[in-house]
Amino acid sequence: METRKLIDFYELTMIYSDMKNGKDKERSYFDVFFRRNLDNGGYNINCGLEEIIDYIKNLKFDKSDIDYQRSLGKFDEEYLTYLENFKFNGDIYAVPDGTVVFPDEPCITVVANTIEAKIIETDVLNKFNHGCLIATKARRIVNAAQDKNILEFGARRAQGADAAIIGAKNAYIAGCVGTSCYEAGKRYNVPLFGTMAHSHVMEYDTEYEAFLAYAKTFPNDATFLVDTIDTLKSGVVNAIKVAYDYLIPNGYRLKGIRLDSGDLAYLSKEARKMLDAAGLDDVMIVASNSLDEHLINDLLKQGAPIDLFGVGENLITAKSCPVFGGVYKLAAIEKDGKMISKIKISNDEGKITNPGYKNTYRLYDKKTGYALRDVIALANEELALENQDYIVRKLQIPIFEGGMLVYEQPTLKERRNYCEKEIKTIIPEILNLTNPEKYNVELSKGLLKLKKELLLNNQKNIEKLDKGFQLVIGGANEKK
Amino acid sequence: METRKLIDFYELTMIYSDMKNGKDKERSYFDVFFRRNLDNGGYNINCGLEEIIDYIKNLKFDKSDIDYQRSLGKFDEEYLTYLENFKFNGDIYAVPDGTVVFPDEPCITVVANTIEAKIIETDVLNKFNHGCLIATKARRIVNAAQDKNILEFGARRAQGADAAIIGAKNAYIAGCVGTSCYEAGKRYNVPLFGTMAHSHVMEYDTEYEAFLAYAKTFPNDATFLVDTIDTLKSGVVNAIKVAYDYLIPNGYRLKGIRLDSGDLAYLSKEARKMLDAAGLDDVMIVASNSLDEHLINDLLKQGAPIDLFGVGENLITAKSCPVFGGVYKLAAIEKDGKMISKIKISNDEGKITNPGYKNTYRLYDKKTGYALRDVIALANEELALENQDYIVRKLQIPIFEGGMLVYEQPTLKERRNYCEKEIKTIIPEILNLTNPEKYNVELSKGLLKLKKELLLNNQKNIEKLDKGFQLVIGGANEKK
Repeated sequence: METRKLIDFYELTMIYSDMKNGKDKERSYFDVFFRRNLDNGGYNINCGLEEIIDYIKNLKFDKSDIDYQRSLGKFDEEYLTYLENFKFNGDIYAVPDGTVVFPDEPCITVVANTIEAKIIETDVLNKFNHGCLIATKARRIVNAAQDKNILEFGARRAQGADAAIIGAKNAYIAGCVGTSCYEAGKRYNVPLFGTMAHSHVMEYDTEYEAFLAYAKTFPNDATFLVDTIDTLKSGVVNAIKVAYDYLIPNGYRLKGIRLDSGDLAYLSKEARKMLDAAGLDDVMIVASNSLDEHLINDLLKQGAPIDLFGVGENLITAKSCPVFGGVYKLAAIEKDGKMISKIKISNDEGKITNPGYKNTYRLYDKKTGYALRDVIALANEELALENQDYIVRKLQIPIFEGGMLVYEQPTLKERRNYCEKEIKTIIPEILNLTNPEKYNVELSKGLLKLKKELLLNNQKNIEKLDKGFQLVIGGANEKK
Repeated sequence: METRKLIDFYELTMIYSDMKNGKDKERSYFDVFFRRNLDNGGYNINCGLEEIIDYIKNLKFDKSDIDYQRSLGKFDEEYLTYLENFKFNGDIYAVPDGTVVFPDEPCITVVANTIEAKIIETDVLNKFNHGCLIATKARRIVNAAQDKNILEFGARRAQGADAAIIGAKNAYIAGCVGTSCYEAGKRYNVPLFGTMAHSHVMEYDTEYEAFLAYAKTFPNDATFLVDTIDTLKSGVVNAIKVAYDYLIPNGYRLKGIRLDSGDLAYLSKEARKMLDAAGLDDVMIVASNSLDEHLINDLLKQGAPIDLFGVGENLITAKSCPVFGGVYKLAAIEKDGKMISKIKISNDEGKITNPGYKNTYRLYDKKTGYALRDVIALANEELALENQDYIVRKLQIPIFEGGMLVYEQPTLKERRNYCEKEIKTIIPEILNLTNPEKYNVELSKGLLKLKKELLLNNQKNIEKLDKGFQLVIGGANEKK
């Protein structure tokens, strides 16, 4: 159960101001979305919902929170009492974990009292951003590995314990076959994998003795790390020796060797030849050492006979692109029963938001099953999307209604299978590592019309202000 | 209290093998160090010790751990009973949080029973890597800002909750003046800062009303976000209007404005002119929007009149270099009372480790106070470093002795002051953002001699193995 509260301090000062100015009677519609795909890719994988649900379900302010906030000398007792009794009572609609998502689509929509919606903002963003970051990065790596498997190995380089544990779990949802992270195994039942460290080899007098000791302990699950001294001249030789001196005579097979440095294409080919020459063609080759999707793609293109890739820091920190830029933007407010759509203006056109309460629909080709395009529309808009060629699916589903959790999270395996199925609905060119095809996300007629109206309205307001400014400055100087 | 266990699964299979092969009677010496400075800089800041101490102090395996490990079907009851009674009994020497450190220097040395030393490996590395990553990145940004201040604003883009909360705390140690992260304020007493979000402006009918409402709530602490509609034509105008319509008539001053998009150099200069023209030359300008050390350096070079920088994603994820490559390497083992130094060989020369139980000494110029060079030496080596020109300081201090915590962590403020003092001992050219001078880290004569001996010895062993390999293959094929 999450008890740490990720809240930016300005959420608290804003809600205090809201309470003091009667805004706490209003209802807000906030959209969570992102503007670009990770790594200039063609798609992202939605994730983080599990952690968001856990947080919101358990969110309350205990005595330590109230005491601390009182000590800041900024807030009154009315506000502190409100927080003491706080409970999230709003609605949340979201796209399930493992769904393929695209820029500008609301992945989460929070419909709640203005104050409640602000209190959860920072945490929702943190978990959404981290979830999508790792799931998307992991999927890029899994896709690059084609029919080979990926293990998540990054705990020691992750940005803190959550990053390691939750990251390992989300990498599994996205298609990794397992992790080295014990706590992810224990908490989420993610399959655990492990071989051995260099220190294990070094602590014995010889590499041979180190391998033999391990083989005796785990005769049916021995994968030797072969690069501590010299991969081909020492490591592979000793692995083969131990296979013949101990494992085979006792009815076992050597499971694998792991390469962790050097030219993995060359070393894997040479090691494969040596193993095959020794009658060990069933022995698996595992490779690690700062791998990422591009290196794996390259190794496979070179014909490297690697069966399993262990990926560490580049996955667990999404090193090439470690920030997922999800935002939480006001789309509408409801005031005295009336809905008022809101737009965020920016000189940077890409940062202008889509106003209003919206839904996103995905259209699938009935014959091929491929997703053809997505349409973002106003929630109350009547669309004629359904026809004989398409299947139409609404992407967001209800998670909380009136503060009640109404969503039953699928098991971890179900989420992993779902993600696999989702990927199969995407046209392969959109999944390309580099220069992917762009997936088509359209705005509906109603949404486009609303957006134009609000932009025009805004332009008029600015012109009015501009004319008035000289008067203001004049007045200010007069009063000096 | 940390109850999550960051343990790579191979630590558990290795220690199981150790137990079954009598290695659990041996003592190991492990060094934690890194090989390169972050961002090609000239220095790093050590951090993470607070979290490491918390973890080791509280490390035990409860029923859920034992049950889970039993369920894996790999371990016997003797091992599970050992874990049930586990307690760390070793020694740990480390460099305090906030210390300036350089490549190859042991920042932490773990001297413990082989099994205990392995059990803590992954967690120590995770916390050391994350700690140094954020402290170093934060310090680079603080240095770039010269006499201006830095706020940490990154919670929503951090890689999970730990990354946000612990990151904010470590950024403060490294010199940031505060954070937006509520939980870091509550847990660690890091000063909290906050302005307002675009949504706060958008939820009112006009920007003027939004500013006015906030000013009424926090008349002596109002900083307005001025880029929701149009920074100069609307935001700054309305800020000035509210200052004159409400704040000044009631005896208050406007505290600040925040710029969050566009050309911050241009906008800050124009906004400064407008504020000054309106008699508001005391109003602070805060700037944010994907800032990092290079952008801040550039803004200041352009003469941007910005008083305070809010830095988000680029600090909290160390975006330009999000992996701190700390490693945990075996340096020696103690077996039947005899110390055996160990070296990790690699074809990559930079990856060859420094063997033996070591100390690092820093030599300071008595006149200037500047650090001149560091010397890594064997712990039992007699050195003649002290002389009339130098002060010599041993960098590592005892943290745990025989499993007992013997280190009293300084307060957060003390650690922040210590870091500030540490930076002042470093020659300015080493602190340069780009192409810094290289600080001199030397190996002592004794350490160099030991390293050469072990490398030579290793070479001989490989030659022996190489000759034997054809025999192995031959034998293997015979047995097929």
